[in-house]
Amino acid sequence: MRRSPLFALLLILIAAPAFSDGGMWTFQEFPHALLKREHGTDVSPAWLDRVRTATIRLSNCTASFVSRDGLILTNHHCGAACLDEHSSKEHNLLAEGFLARTRDKELKCGTQIADVLMQMEDITAQVNAATQGLSDQAANDKRKATMTQLEQQCEQDGKKAKGGPFKCETVDLYEGGQYWMYKYHRYSDVRMVFAPERAIAAFGGDPDNFQFPRWDLDMSVLRAYGPDGKPAATPNFLSINPAGPQAGDLVFVSGHPGSTSRLLTVAELETQRDIILPRWLLRAAELRGRLIQFGKSSPEAARIVEDPLNTLENVIKVRRKLLDALLDERLMQAKRKDEAALRAQVAADPQLAQALGDPWASIAKAQQREEQLYLPYVWIEQGAGLGAGYPGKLFGYARTLVRAAAERTKPNTERLREYSDAALPRVEQRLVAPVPVYPELEKINLSFSLERMREWMGPDAPIVRQLLSHDSPDTLAAKLVDGTQLSDPAVRKRLWDGGAAAVDASTDPLIVLARSVDAEARAARKSYEDEVEAPETAAAEKIARARFKVFGTSEPPDANFTLRLNFGTVQGWQEGDHAVPPFTQLAQLYTRATGQDPFRVPEAWLSAKPALNMETRFNLSTNNDIVGGNSGSPLINAKGEIVGLMFDGNIHSIAGDYWFDPQLNRAVAVDPQIIFEGLRKVYKASELLSELGSK
Amino acid sequence: MRRSPLFALLLILIAAPAFSDGGMWTFQEFPHALLKREHGTDVSPAWLDRVRTATIRLSNCTASFVSRDGLILTNHHCGAACLDEHSSKEHNLLAEGFLARTRDKELKCGTQIADVLMQMEDITAQVNAATQGLSDQAANDKRKATMTQLEQQCEQDGKKAKGGPFKCETVDLYEGGQYWMYKYHRYSDVRMVFAPERAIAAFGGDPDNFQFPRWDLDMSVLRAYGPDGKPAATPNFLSINPAGPQAGDLVFVSGHPGSTSRLLTVAELETQRDIILPRWLLRAAELRGRLIQFGKSSPEAARIVEDPLNTLENVIKVRRKLLDALLDERLMQAKRKDEAALRAQVAADPQLAQALGDPWASIAKAQQREEQLYLPYVWIEQGAGLGAGYPGKLFGYARTLVRAAAERTKPNTERLREYSDAALPRVEQRLVAPVPVYPELEKINLSFSLERMREWMGPDAPIVRQLLSHDSPDTLAAKLVDGTQLSDPAVRKRLWDGGAAAVDASTDPLIVLARSVDAEARAARKSYEDEVEAPETAAAEKIARARFKVFGTSEPPDANFTLRLNFGTVQGWQEGDHAVPPFTQLAQLYTRATGQDPFRVPEAWLSAKPALNMETRFNLSTNNDIVGGNSGSPLINAKGEIVGLMFDGNIHSIAGDYWFDPQLNRAVAVDPQIIFEGLRKVYKASELLSELGSK
Repeated sequence: MRRSPLFALLLILIAAPAFSDGGMWTFQEFPHALLKREHGTDVSPAWLDRVRTATIRLSNCTASFVSRDGLILTNHHCGAACLDEHSSKEHNLLAEGFLARTRDKELKCGTQIADVLMQMEDITAQVNAATQGLSDQAANDKRKATMTQLEQQCEQDGKKAKGGPFKCETVDLYEGGQYWMYKYHRYSDVRMVFAPERAIAAFGGDPDNFQFPRWDLDMSVLRAYGPDGKPAATPNFLSINPAGPQAGDLVFVSGHPGSTSRLLTVAELETQRDIILPRWLLRAAELRGRLIQFGKSSPEAARIVEDPLNTLENVIKVRRKLLDALLDERLMQAKRKDEAALRAQVAADPQLAQALGDPWASIAKAQQREEQLYLPYVWIEQGAGLGAGYPGKLFGYARTLVRAAAERTKPNTERLREYSDAALPRVEQRLVAPVPVYPELEKINLSFSLERMREWMGPDAPIVRQLLSHDSPDTLAAKLVDGTQLSDPAVRKRLWDGGAAAVDASTDPLIVLARSVDAEARAARKSYEDEVEAPETAAAEKIARARFKVFGTSEPPDANFTLRLNFGTVQGWQEGDHAVPPFTQLAQLYTRATGQDPFRVPEAWLSAKPALNMETRFNLSTNNDIVGGNSGSPLINAKGEIVGLMFDGNIHSIAGDYWFDPQLNRAVAVDPQIIFEGLRKVYKASELLSELGSK
Repeated sequence: MRRSPLFALLLILIAAPAFSDGGMWTFQEFPHALLKREHGTDVSPAWLDRVRTATIRLSNCTASFVSRDGLILTNHHCGAACLDEHSSKEHNLLAEGFLARTRDKELKCGTQIADVLMQMEDITAQVNAATQGLSDQAANDKRKATMTQLEQQCEQDGKKAKGGPFKCETVDLYEGGQYWMYKYHRYSDVRMVFAPERAIAAFGGDPDNFQFPRWDLDMSVLRAYGPDGKPAATPNFLSINPAGPQAGDLVFVSGHPGSTSRLLTVAELETQRDIILPRWLLRAAELRGRLIQFGKSSPEAARIVEDPLNTLENVIKVRRKLLDALLDERLMQAKRKDEAALRAQVAADPQLAQALGDPWASIAKAQQREEQLYLPYVWIEQGAGLGAGYPGKLFGYARTLVRAAAERTKPNTERLREYSDAALPRVEQRLVAPVPVYPELEKINLSFSLERMREWMGPDAPIVRQLLSHDSPDTLAAKLVDGTQLSDPAVRKRLWDGGAAAVDASTDPLIVLARSVDAEARAARKSYEDEVEAPETAAAEKIARARFKVFGTSEPPDANFTLRLNFGTVQGWQEGDHAVPPFTQLAQLYTRATGQDPFRVPEAWLSAKPALNMETRFNLSTNNDIVGGNSGSPLINAKGEIVGLMFDGNIHSIAGDYWFDPQLNRAVAVDPQIIFEGLRKVYKASELLSELGSK
């Protein structure tokens, strides 16, 4: 855990929101004045519209349109699940890479989607009017029903709208300070066009993850198709500038940062530090160990665990660094000081103080309940004790079938939000997608889940006694996985179509399990929502009002996987006593290679080496403010050209969840130079190059 | 994480050291007055001498003599390594249990010893005189040299002393407030006589570990032999009272509590919370996952990992709960308050204040250095990155051979302390013992170590580049383990006997590795000792002086695996809204069983069931203040009879590392009733029963 200049700076920064290029701004409240002040330039509304409609939200990442025929550029790790889906014992597309030389060879990704944000509408007034005067719990329920109802109306209206039909989603900005309706155009048919070998896409693997200098060709190319089965027409695409950017260039990142916690209260940060992160990390570390060891048992096992393990290790690295940040007393002291300052400003305004009460105390109280309700919520409702946790699939299918069957019989606004009419098509797509299910992996995951639920909830917890009265975690996992038919998409489809009658009649052991724990799981959720979520939401809205009063919208809202734009420049940083330059070159890749994974250069790059320009720029760093979810985002210059493909940050960027450090926090991108050099000389992807407008 | 009454109490308790039966007292400063005040009785000097010389320190536990022929009673888990040593694919003594019906069938434990504390001599004046006026670093080195020299003298003198020869060990009490020379009689030949099946010894396994009520026959019986190969004569044994104790009885525990941290400063506790515990836990959790998954690969793999996994899971549970305790802000606030109070008392005494300076600040400063030096110290010097961590054996052998060869050429007082003349016989015993080495387990451990060192130190750390320039952790681990001959005890013996010449000439790949990292490892150690240990020790001595001035020896020193005696009574406790009674009965074992490990009753106990008295008391709880290291300790009544065999504590006892909570902290013992019922009716161990004085 490195400390140094970071925290001295923090103490200065925290006093007033000053960003120096930090800030994940919405397109509707983009800070033109700030951009002009800091960089002496501006972007036009047309520029913003074009960038917004060329930016794509994938299910797990960001991407952008790079040709008029729906061609999509994103990261390799964003398309990895699709490659995994199409892999088999005989053909491992993650390892071998993939190139469709003609469009009929492009591979459909079973669960991927591409959403483009077409319109944003402020619905704060409607949401607040609906909850006015209600208790925290009643307001929490009513707010959700209102969101469902507004989404339903929006999708109804959006069927014939320009750019429609729309998928409508309510968005909460500033922890409840604003509500918006975001209207997306959705492409549900997304196909794989090109991916390099994982060895070059993720050269350095987990050891180099969140490090810079780097040499990763972390790219894949997808294509959006329309409902007619033809490539989507996307005239609003962004073209890639093959030369890439220069040091010091002004650059923008358009994308969907997943989540930040910069506006959380100290009490909420303490819950992260004391309850949530350590417990999650301990579970994940053990699962990592089980998967690694399983992967050593055969080449096929190694293939099966590759993608889950990459995902898991990435999150472990992130959360470990988040815990380090929160364990640093200086960060917490700075957050306490910041909070005290805001509270003092509220106290100095008697009218505001009276209207707000003490929302900080309400949140602190909710944290105490969270600590008590956390175990049943995580293990039973979230299903971490039942195999629902990543990378398990089977219990999730069973839970979805059982829950959806019950929820679909209710009026739309009375359902759990994830089963509203607006959400159902996506639920069904994920449920019935023909993705592979590996029984060995499911057993490992389920046995692990059951064993740890017994550890954390104790062997005498009623649900543990119920499940393990005559079984060990291993024997029960084997019975369930060997006995279920839910790995067959056709079986899932039949149960989905059959609704409550089919699900209630099913004797599939996983359906039986999901039914048998449903009442207890729903009860754990209800307690959690009423006693943690409801008072937290009510209090957070009050704090948001206080912040608006003091700061207006001069600070951006926390990230929540909705579209944001931020700006910065291409630059390295000063790491202790040495300067890290902003670009790496191809030659260094070969120096760093050890011949062994994850530092192995794939065969194609070894044999092509004589033909390659060793000066080609490979990866680059900028001071854009991005976090997970921004993976695959286009790095854009002032002319609106793509000059990089974001795929990571440096190690300091992880603490970006809590604050942006302009001295150390750096984003990392693939340089277009290596993209074109690779496509041309290593992959000889002439059709793709031609579609990208290159010779 | 349960909070409740514990912390309210803490706030009261911390103000002044009040113990209510807590306290791990030395025999030389046993608080007779306190015992009399609280229990209206006392124990005589003769009682103390008898108990002390009947109490045994094993290498990992406590035990006691229970017959005049050297018979030793301890826990099953204290003898597990010995059972593991004698197990094979064909015979798993951990699973099957073991009974030597005649003495010639008793099994020699390769690395076990039995030490009995014969004399204690106060050497504070000598140690302090030697370090008087030196800088912290010079004092740290000089102190160690002085200890080595005093031990050498003590062993020389002890050769012909009554009760000798002596093994002499310097003991530091009150964090440097007192130094003592403890003189032990050592039995180096210890053999296994009896152990039940692990399924009954550790019924409930990891899920029930640190829980009560319990049903564990956690016992084994060993025997000490003299250098003549005959059973040791131990007329000072303690007899077991087959009836066990009654609720409310005054009871004593004599044993070797391993370590407590009750006198640490707040800065040191924060280091535990922020640096040491989370990092250790993350490593251990992953290793646990790897071992569990390996164990599923075959019955033989399951056997191989059984003992390492039990050990690892026990420590994980302990440290997880320790982290929970430290993460609770109320505990830390109480510790801060306690520290502030002591500092205020120092400040109020100008002469003392001037003499002490600010040792708390020195310790805080040393913590900052510790954070920086921690990674190389742990990964390289402690060898966590080289496979030296539990359960690896091979790198440890190589390190010992390389270090000992170099150290043995130096004068005794100039060596690393672990290679002093007094220490060498034990080093050699452990090195050359014919214990099994499992290549698969070594590879798992070594690959894991290398991979995590690369993660934590980074792929560009020089030692990582050196080791993994052309290898992955897996390929390097395979080369080293397949290439070494150190799993052969005869090879180790030859290298040991051959000294520096043989070790320097060796081309064994593990010896080569140990040599190649030795300079860097020693440098990491030196920095750590000079910049962390030296100022910490100097400052801790000053704080100890302050505590003596304020509290005298009315509070006991922190535990450090030296002999202690404490008293309490047989009692349960109030857990939330229900009372936990102090005894369990045999009948409940059969109710709790699920038929699956770890809740499986072994066959012998199922077939003997009709003959057994279901009312037999099984386990019991007391409010004695014990921690790990006390495992195997005798529970003794006022008459000096054994009335229980300590093997665990309840879940609240884990926080006993930081403080003793009289309301909730309970120790857990095996009741003599179940010991005799089992020996008589299940194991039909008539010879053993007769030696224990029973029919």
